[in-house]
Formats: sequence, C-alpha cells, structure tokens
Amino acid sequence: MNKIKCGIIGATGYAGVELVRILMRHPVVELAAVGSVSFEGKPVSGIYPSLRGVCDMVCVSSDEVIAASDVVFAAVPHGLSQELAFQCTEKGKKLIDLGADFRLDDAAEYEKWYGCEYKYPQLHDKAVYGLCELFRDSVAGADVIGNPGCYPTSVALGLAPVLRGGLVETRGIMIDSKSGVTGAGRGLTQGTHFPECNEAFSAYKVAAHRHSPEIEQTLSKIADMEVTVTFVPHLLPVNRGILSTIYARLLPDVSEEQVAAAYESAYADEAFVRVLPKGACVDVRSVKCSNYCDVQWYIDSHTGTLIVTSVIDNMVKGAAGQAVQNMNIMFGIDETAGLDMIPTAF
Amino acid sequence: MNKIKCGIIGATGYAGVELVRILMRHPVVELAAVGSVSFEGKPVSGIYPSLRGVCDMVCVSSDEVIAASDVVFAAVPHGLSQELAFQCTEKGKKLIDLGADFRLDDAAEYEKWYGCEYKYPQLHDKAVYGLCELFRDSVAGADVIGNPGCYPTSVALGLAPVLRGGLVETRGIMIDSKSGVTGAGRGLTQGTHFPECNEAFSAYKVAAHRHSPEIEQTLSKIADMEVTVTFVPHLLPVNRGILSTIYARLLPDVSEEQVAAAYESAYADEAFVRVLPKGACVDVRSVKCSNYCDVQWYIDSHTGTLIVTSVIDNMVKGAAGQAVQNMNIMFGIDETAGLDMIPTAF
Amino acid sequence: MNKIKCGIIGATGYAGVELVRILMRHPVVELAAVGSVSFEGKPVSGIYPSLRGVCDMVCVSSDEVIAASDVVFAAVPHGLSQELAFQCTEKGKKLIDLGADFRLDDAAEYEKWYGCEYKYPQLHDKAVYGLCELFRDSVAGADVIGNPGCYPTSVALGLAPVLRGGLVETRGIMIDSKSGVTGAGRGLTQGTHFPECNEAFSAYKVAAHRHSPEIEQTLSKIADMEVTVTFVPHLLPVNRGILSTIYARLLPDVSEEQVAAAYESAYADEAFVRVLPKGACVDVRSVKCSNYCDVQWYIDSHTGTLIVTSVIDNMVKGAAGQAVQNMNIMFGIDETAGLDMIPTAF
Amino acid sequence: MNKIKCGIIGATGYAGVELVRILMRHPVVELAAVGSVSFEGKPVSGIYPSLRGVCDMVCVSSDEVIAASDVVFAAVPHGLSQELAFQCTEKGKKLIDLGADFRLDDAAEYEKWYGCEYKYPQLHDKAVYGLCELFRDSVAGADVIGNPGCYPTSVALGLAPVLRGGLVETRGIMIDSKSGVTGAGRGLTQGTHFPECNEAFSAYKVAAHRHSPEIEQTLSKIADMEVTVTFVPHLLPVNRGILSTIYARLLPDVSEEQVAAAYESAYADEAFVRVLPKGACVDVRSVKCSNYCDVQWYIDSHTGTLIVTSVIDNMVKGAAGQAVQNMNIMFGIDETAGLDMIPTAF
Repeated sequence: MNKIKCGIIGATGYAGVELVRILMRHPVVELAAVGSVSFEGKPVSGIYPSLRGVCDMVCVSSDEVIAASDVVFAAVPHGLSQELAFQCTEKGKKLIDLGADFRLDDAAEYEKWYGCEYKYPQLHDKAVYGLCELFRDSVAGADVIGNPGCYPTSVALGLAPVLRGGLVETRGIMIDSKSGVTGAGRGLTQGTHFPECNEAFSAYKVAAHRHSPEIEQTLSKIADMEVTVTFVPHLLPVNRGILSTIYARLLPDVSEEQVAAAYESAYADEAFVRVLPKGACVDVRSVKCSNYCDVQWYIDSHTGTLIVTSVIDNMVKGAAGQAVQNMNIMFGIDETAGLDMIPTAF
Repeated sequence: MNKIKCGIIGATGYAGVELVRILMRHPVVELAAVGSVSFEGKPVSGIYPSLRGVCDMVCVSSDEVIAASDVVFAAVPHGLSQELAFQCTEKGKKLIDLGADFRLDDAAEYEKWYGCEYKYPQLHDKAVYGLCELFRDSVAGADVIGNPGCYPTSVALGLAPVLRGGLVETRGIMIDSKSGVTGAGRGLTQGTHFPECNEAFSAYKVAAHRHSPEIEQTLSKIADMEVTVTFVPHLLPVNRGILSTIYARLLPDVSEEQVAAAYESAYADEAFVRVLPKGACVDVRSVKCSNYCDVQWYIDSHTGTLIVTSVIDNMVKGAAGQAVQNMNIMFGIDETAGLDMIPTAF
Repeated sequence: MNKIKCGIIGATGYAGVELVRILMRHPVVELAAVGSVSFEGKPVSGIYPSLRGVCDMVCVSSDEVIAASDVVFAAVPHGLSQELAFQCTEKGKKLIDLGADFRLDDAAEYEKWYGCEYKYPQLHDKAVYGLCELFRDSVAGADVIGNPGCYPTSVALGLAPVLRGGLVETRGIMIDSKSGVTGAGRGLTQGTHFPECNEAFSAYKVAAHRHSPEIEQTLSKIADMEVTVTFVPHLLPVNRGILSTIYARLLPDVSEEQVAAAYESAYADEAFVRVLPKGACVDVRSVKCSNYCDVQWYIDSHTGTLIVTSVIDNMVKGAAGQAVQNMNIMFGIDETAGLDMIPTAF
Repeated sequence: MNKIKCGIIGATGYAGVELVRILMRHPVVELAAVGSVSFEGKPVSGIYPSLRGVCDMVCVSSDEVIAASDVVFAAVPHGLSQELAFQCTEKGKKLIDLGADFRLDDAAEYEKWYGCEYKYPQLHDKAVYGLCELFRDSVAGADVIGNPGCYPTSVALGLAPVLRGGLVETRGIMIDSKSGVTGAGRGLTQGTHFPECNEAFSAYKVAAHRHSPEIEQTLSKIADMEVTVTFVPHLLPVNRGILSTIYARLLPDVSEEQVAAAYESAYADEAFVRVLPKGACVDVRSVKCSNYCDVQWYIDSHTGTLIVTSVIDNMVKGAAGQAVQNMNIMFGIDETAGLDMIPTAF
C-alpha cells in the first residue's frame, strides 16, 4: 500500500505540532508538507527545538501543502478553513479541520458564536462531525471533517451512554470542565503568562463559551431530543488535559445496574475509551500524551444525581489524535494506527 | 490592654504553622506556647526553616499549651479536640477547633462520617460553628468554636445571599470544588507525592466527602429549610486555594437585579468578602495568603441557572485566618486585627 | 512623626505591585501616589484584582507622583530613571531606582550592557548602590539609590564574608543562578508562556547577562581588588525566588573554622540574613514573600572548593523589599519597618 | 527473528514503569514478565492506571521473571542486583542493572558510598558500564551492564568531546546539576510532598552525592587521566529532566574552532545526541519523554571558561531509555529500535 500523503496547515500551533509528532510515527503515512503563515520559510524545528533532527521540514504555503497532500489537516483560526476545504474538495483531496468551521450544523449559530458566515453551504451539508466513537459510519464516507472541540469530546464521550439509553433528564445538565493551558493555544496573553497562570485557577467564559452550542448539538443528536446544558470551563495550571465533571438527574427508577450496563456496552469494543472499574478515579495524568478517554461515573443516591467524570489529553483525543483517528477511518485503515501512544504516567 | 495569650496545639501541621505566621504578627496577641505530639521538644523552626529567627519556640505538650494560654487553637486530627475542649472549659479557657469535632450538630452524623462519638454532649450544645460572616453574634459569646471546614466556608459564603433571600431552589444544588494540595495536609500519601500530583488533576471522594453534611447543615440553617447538595471535590495542583463553582436553579421570576441586590447587601459591610464587579472573574491567585473570600455570580438565562464562583485561601479564610477572626470576635477586638495580609498577587 | 510620603512610578509592573503591597502596610509610610504609563487613569486594582479594596488608587503621571512624594520608587525600564532622578533631586526629593540606571559606576560599562548613556554624570557620582548590608553607611546619606539587581544581591550576600576576609581566590569564581519567572517581568514572551515555561528549565544569556558587570563591580569593592566571575543564569519554573550556587577556590591553609567565623561575624547583627546551621539546606521556599536572604556554605575538601548557596525572594530582597529597606535607612527609621513579613512556608 | 524476551524486576518503580512503556512498543521485543516485591500478585495497571488496557500483566517474583526472560532489567534498590546478576549469568541470561551495583570499578568506593560489599568480584570484572555512546564496543559483548546514573550520563556526554580532546583542565571542574523529582523515585519523603516541593528549589547532598565517584570514574576514563570534580545536585520542581551546567577551564591557546570541531566530530553519527547550533539553548522540555541528550557549549573568554549545558530526560536517557539502548547493542539489533519517541514539546 502506498503511504497516505498528509499535509498540515498551521503546523506551528500547538495542535499542529502535535500532529507532526503523531504523523511522523504513523506507519502508513508520509508527512508530505507542513504549512505556516507566521513561519513560512522556516523549519518547524526552529520553532520547536524538540523536533530537531526529527522533523526539520520547512514551512510552506497553504497552496503547496494542498498540492502535496492526499489529506490536509487544518489547524488554523476559525474562519480560515472554509476556503481551504473548498480548495481541497475541488482537487479531490480530503480535509480535516481542527478548528470550528465545520462543527456546527446551523449557520446562524456559527455566526452568533464565531462572528463569521458559512461561505460554502454545500460543503457544510456534506461535512461530518468527527467524534469517531459516536459517528464512525458517517466519518468513513466523509471528505470534510469537523474535528470536535476538546471540551465537547470529553463531555459527549462521558454522557453518550446514558443519553442514548434515556437514563437521565435532558434538562438541567451541569458541565464543569477544567482544561490545561495548551488549550488556550500558543498565542501570548496575560492570563497564560507563567507568573499569572501558575498557582492560579479560575473559571472563564462562564455559560458563554463557544463550545456550548457544539455540546448541545452533539448531546441532542445522541439523545435524539433537545438537550440543554450549563457549561463552565476553568483554566487548570497544567500543560495538558481536560477533566469534565458532569451532573445529570437520573430518571426515576433507573438502577445502578442499568447505568453500568449502558457504559459497558457502549465502550466494550472501543480502543480509546476506558470505563474505569468501581473505586478508581479518572486523572488527567492517566491519559497524558495518549488518545485515551477515561470515564468514571457515580450515583449520588442522596440527591438522585448521576455524576460523570471524563478525562482526555486535550491535545491528543481533544485535537490531533482524534484528527488522525478520523483520517484512519476515512482511509479505511486500522483506526488505531499511529495512535498507540502509552500515557506517560508522569 | 494586656495581650491575649494564645496557644496552638498541633503547631507543626499546615494549619498550625499558618496560625504561627498570623499570630506572630497579631497586634494584641502573644503566642504563648506551641504544641506538637510528633515534634515535642523540637523548635517549630526546625520543622519549618522559613520560621528560623522568627519563631524558634520549642514544641511542648498539650497540657503545657493549655496552661500557658487564654485561648487555645487546636489543629489536630478529628476526635482529639473534644478532650482538649473539655480541659479548656474546665480551666476557663477558650478553644477554637480547626478540626471537625465541633462542626456537626448531630452526633449521629458525626459518628457516621468520622467514626467517633461525641464524648461531652453538653460541650457540643454550647459550641458555636464559627463561620464569622454568618454567625457572628453567636461567636461573640462562645467558649468553644468549631472552625468551619475549608470547602464549606467557600460554599456557604458563595450561596448565603441567595439562600437567605429565597432566590434559588434548595434542591438540586451542585457544588464542584477544587482545592490546593495543602488541604490534604502535611502527611505523606502517594497522591500528594510530587510526580503524581504535579501535572495531574482528579476528582476524589465524589459525593462522599466528609464536608457534605457540614455544607448541608450550614446551608439549611441559612435557608431556614432543608437544603440538599451534590458535592464533588477535586485536587488542584497548586499549593493554596479553593475555588467552588456552584450551580443552583433560580426560582421563577427572580431577576438579575434581585440577585445583585442580595449579594451587595449581604457583603457591603464585610471586610473579608469581596463581590467582584461584573466582568471580573474570581481566581485563587487573587486571595492567596489573605483572609479574603472573592465571589462572582452569573445567570445562565438559557437554562435558568445561577452559577456562583467563590475563592478562598484554604489555609487562611479556610483555616487559620478564620480561626483568628473568630478569636478576634470572641475577645471583642477589631475583627480584622492581624488579618490585614494583602494577597501576594503571584 | 509625620508619615513619609511615598510614590511609585511603574506601579503596575511586578516590582511595582510588590512595592504597593509592602508600602500599604508600612507603619510610618503613606502611599501618596502610584504612576503607570501603560495604565494611567486606571486603578491599580483593575490590573491586580488581588488589590481590590486594598489599594484602589488610580495611576497618575510621573510628574504627579513626584509632586506628591517625599521619596519616589522608580520601577521602570532602564534608561528612564535618570530623568526621574534629575527631577526628584531638583525638587529636593529622594529617588530609589529599582532599575539599572544607577547601579554601575562606569558609564562605559553601562553603555556597553544597556545601550544608553549617562545623561547626568553628577547624579551618578552621588548615587549610592543600595546593597544595604554592605553599604549601609553610604545609603544613609544618599538622595539617589541604585537598588541592586536580584542576582547580584543573592551573590554579594553569599560571598561577602569570605571575599572581605580574603579567604578565597578572586579569580575563577563560578556563579550558577536560578531565578523564578517573575524576574522576567510582566511583559509577555514565548519563553514565559505557561505551556513553554512550565515543566521546562533552561540556561539563558550564558556568560552574557547584564548582571555580570554589576556582580563583578560589587564583589571587587568587597574584596578591595579585582574579582572576575563566570555567571550563568537559569529560568526556574516557580513564581518567586532566586538560588545562587557559587563556586570559589579556597586559598591555601584556610580552615573550616575561619570560614564559619567569617559568616558568623558578618551577619550576626543582620536582621535579614540568616546563615543556616550545619546540615540545613537553603530553599527558595523558606524565604518566599519575605525580605530574608538565607545562606549556607560547604567546603568540598576533595577539591579545595568553597560552595556557597544563597536564596532570596527576587521580588522582595531582590527588588521591592530591599528598596524599602534602603528607604528606611535613608530616612533614619527602623531598618526593618514594614519588612517583617514571615515567609509563607508554602 | 524471534522476539527477545524481556523481564523487568522492580517494574512498579518509576524507572520500571518507564521500561514497561518503552518495551511494550519495542518492535523486536516481547515483554515476558514483570516483577515487584511490593505488588506481587497485582497487575501493574493497578498501580499505574495509565497502563490500563495497555499492560495488565500481573507482577510475579524475581525468579519467575528470570525464568521467563532472555534479558532482565533490574530496577531495584542498590545491593539487590548482585544476586540477580549472579542468577542470570548462571542461567545464561543477560542482566541490565538500572541501579548502582555495577557502576563503580572499585569495590572500596562502592562500599564507601553505598555501604554494601561486592559479593561476586568476578561478576564485577566482566560487567560493563553502559554509557552507550562512549563504551559501545564493550557493551556489545557484555552479559551484565551497569546502566549509568542519570546525572553521570548528562555530565559525561556533555564533557566527553573536550576531555577526550584534551582541551580543558582536568582539575577544578564544577558541575551544577538540576533534576526533576522523578529522580527521587516513587518512595514518599517530606521533600517530595507536593506542597513542600512545588514552588521550591534547593541544593542537596552538596559535594556529597553518590554520583560523584561515578562521574569522576567515567570522566577519568574518557580523559585517560585523573579528573576531579565538584558536584552539586539540585531538586527541580518538574517531573522529568536533568540539566547539568558544567564549568571547566580551557587550556591555553585552545580555540573556539577546536571546541566546535570536538563536539561535531564526537556526535555527528550519534542518533541520540544533538549538539545545538549556536544561539540555541538546551531546555529539559526539548528532550522530554525522549532518549535525546541535547548539548550546548559556550566560551566565556572573559575568564577562559568553557561552559557546557546538557539535558536529558532522567527517566529515559537517564534510566529506562539508555537501558533499552544497551539491550539493543547487546543483541546486535538497531540501536534505536523502540527508542524513536519524539519529545513531547509540552
């Protein structure tokens, strides 16, 4: 089999460089080109010295990346991927967008939260939301993938079994998420300046984060009815990892056994979702640098609440890893190819 | 005025050493004696080199501490303070317990969560729960104080205005708290070993933490009706600080103005509670090493949810600072004496 | 006694805000005005929410600060303090410069390392280098103080006793320093962006840091002969603290007792320098948020090397604290006034 | 080719679990057995939840590990590997000791620093010190390997080119090393308890660390003459990584070109040593989770000093990675097999 030629546009952002790391070690992939607007003409290892001798490829233009690739990963600010997707599809290439341009079905919602328009409605009609474990069949036939946001991935994998099974109320779901700082990207801000971020912890964009509509859209699809949530993200002083703590009211007469069965059957055959045994707690440390999502659930019988905790590495299952997983599905190769990284433990 | 003679039993634990720091700089206090079972006969600065030349007092027995003091701070494992309180009251001294022995009204609840009995029921009848801003009048006349737990302090101060005002439902309150590692104390555990705690984040004792009954007891008193909560604590990889994110359903027709007024009136005259202006976010960093509690609230009109975020330094307002604030009230001196520490900013 | 009116120019930088913290609690000082070019017209608590309710003073212009003050603290980029000093002296006010403009005796060295000229040579002639423990007498009579750099403070206090005593060779001194990230200031850089600074550690400006000439100048004054050093700073992923490890060759026949006596006699009467007892190690944690400098020394008899380790809080003894100590000396008040902060322990 | 059967004794320590991670993904290796005294009978993924579903092997006895393996990795406290090595050689198996039992040539030095005796002198005679880049030929024929200490690896790779070339003085070398906390192991201590290690930094075992004799032995072999050093280790509040800053006096008339040539020729063909281009600085972050050693050097012409900075991941090139590299050499397979991990960048 010929190797799949992959290109990355936006290779010098955090998600981009994580893609480089994964694709460089992918068994059936050739990293054909890396692109960067900010660093065009410079080697990616000049920006990330960790890559010296590993990937010294020089950043080129988007056009060059597209020309060299069978599939393009776009890790660029929202609004910019639509044009790239158009060009890719025109040339018969596939595009996986790590940004937000192809995540929302509703153009009005996109415009409301991101302030841009959908330029190619027909592209959005055929684009697929690539939360692999939930929409695998659609991904297989897709040409354009909207790779899910990091928070929505952690939430949807955590709640899918009980929403699909109709075990919890679809109103009043509270989602309290905490993300490592790579989630804020490589751009400099006062809030991510070390002395102001280290030994700090805060909530931000309370009930006003752009991932809210994406979460509700996905949960509603899973539940096959409208789901509303309250979503509060927090900035966690670690490099990698998201932990979402989710509170939902159990429907009357739902037993612990039913919940257990729902999680077990949902993920028994999934390579990347681990439902922890009773007594174990999820920890962002246990999935660091891997494509795993670990899930643990609890019933607070005192209040009739189901509590779900779910962790991912925001840069892997929450971005680059899931993007590669989508690529694997799209190209019909082993879904775990290139993604067998073992969490680093510490 | 003669200086108040203070003693600390359990001076070498984290809350104990924070008491040393505060009391050494308190204008109307003399630190008369420090006690430690583990380090009796050793100077406290031998265990905490930071105190060298500041406090080189040698740790003595509990009896010696009580004998030397007008008021005793007990920062010892639960179950041990009851005897100390008995001795103090017998000798006409006051006791402020930083542990859990005098927090719960119901002996059965105490036994259920802590596995010990109430040995001196009459002492528990007269002991006062020292959440200063809420029960100041009772504190003033007390001889034995149960100093509140760190989590309950952050939660009660966050919710009191709306519970007291009857603005939220008393059922279905979700409390998602995150605590710095000093909250786990000085004792060694695998989970607080640096390489397993750093760059990590996890939920623990989900819906099963000992602070749950204390939270419900306090909120019920404030609301004057039974309040139930779901409480999930998390271990945050920072030294100091608690942030609680609290989700409650607004009652129908409650307006944003009513909520604003409730917070404003509740804390307008409080020295240590700061309600942030709209647009500002609480951060554990902004209260570090101080006795402040910062509060911010939000209404998610999409779901009718009130979200309250509240931060304290778990070692100060969550332990030693509040204990000193209680002492100030008990002795009729300026409530802020010795507690004017400015947060360190970084 | 009337309170001393203090002003801070550059109050919103890290050293500036640390000055605010200290001066707000100084017993014989009134913080008269705070200045900031970047944030003129805004309250300092708008930039540092930790100060809300503590110091809500609005930032004014430099001229206004000078007009309102008896003594001005300048915490501004190098090159800007000379003009401020000129204005202050013209108006009979004192100036303490936390920057580099008044640290180097030699105008050529200043120009070489900082790229600016000395505009008022006569000012530089009368300016005093304010390393309090070493040049206290000169400070007492000064109108303009060059407050020492953070690295030079840690190094000079560590080496002074043996250099003054002529116990070590003045050539071949190696200084390996490690500084917390606040030392890099509030300005944003890629290297201080949390995900690139956290879990990282690097040397920078190896043998090329601007503090090198200041270190050599100070050590030469102490030794009363030319001292040369090799100085390598490192960026430490903590907020506060400097640890300098210093390697010097012991002169022949110098005994351990002589070294011990040198340190003991040098610092026996110093309030802020603590020479640790044998067996104890310095730790940046033990001086955090205080004006202490802790020193420990070792003799490696195997190679005839004296190893000195010295720690300070770079923001306090390395900047704002020492500046206030200088002010105390200049105004003839208790040298420790306002500086009795106890290290936070954690 | 049949897969090499590997066993790990001490699989639940930090070096042990890192070996599990590497060997599980090694292309020509089968992880045959894992052993642990503390956790015999338990799955390794019970101790490290990160390994759940990746390696759920149950810990067995040392005898069982040896029986199942072609090569045994021993990651046990010093003193215990000698017996294991004896058993392995009796049974025709190879042993790679990650501890200190086979590092020192001189039994008296071992006894002095480690307090144990050499029980099988003939084993020590044939054991090889496995610093791959320096002693590759000897490793190839060895049955027992003393895998180098983490500090000595970083130092020897940093200094080898100039010592071998006779470019620096062999006296007066100062080594200032800083290690992440995993270097202290999994065992609990007060100094590695999160609140006392986080935001802290200290020197320890100053000029008295067990790695000193190992460093001098290795450097003396390289220089082919006696080398003495002063070695000061520090505890760095990060999980992984060692940075050593090394100070040596350049011999007269040695030019920058000679130094450059020495480094270039020494490592041009090495897969795991990267000499950085001028202007770049080493950072522990750039080698994290990889087997790389990055080296940068500087000449301080002001004092005639060569400064070398060198970084490794203490758990990989400083322990498990180098052990696997040794195994690869011993078995005549590609030296980089299983070791192509790309540093994580953040």
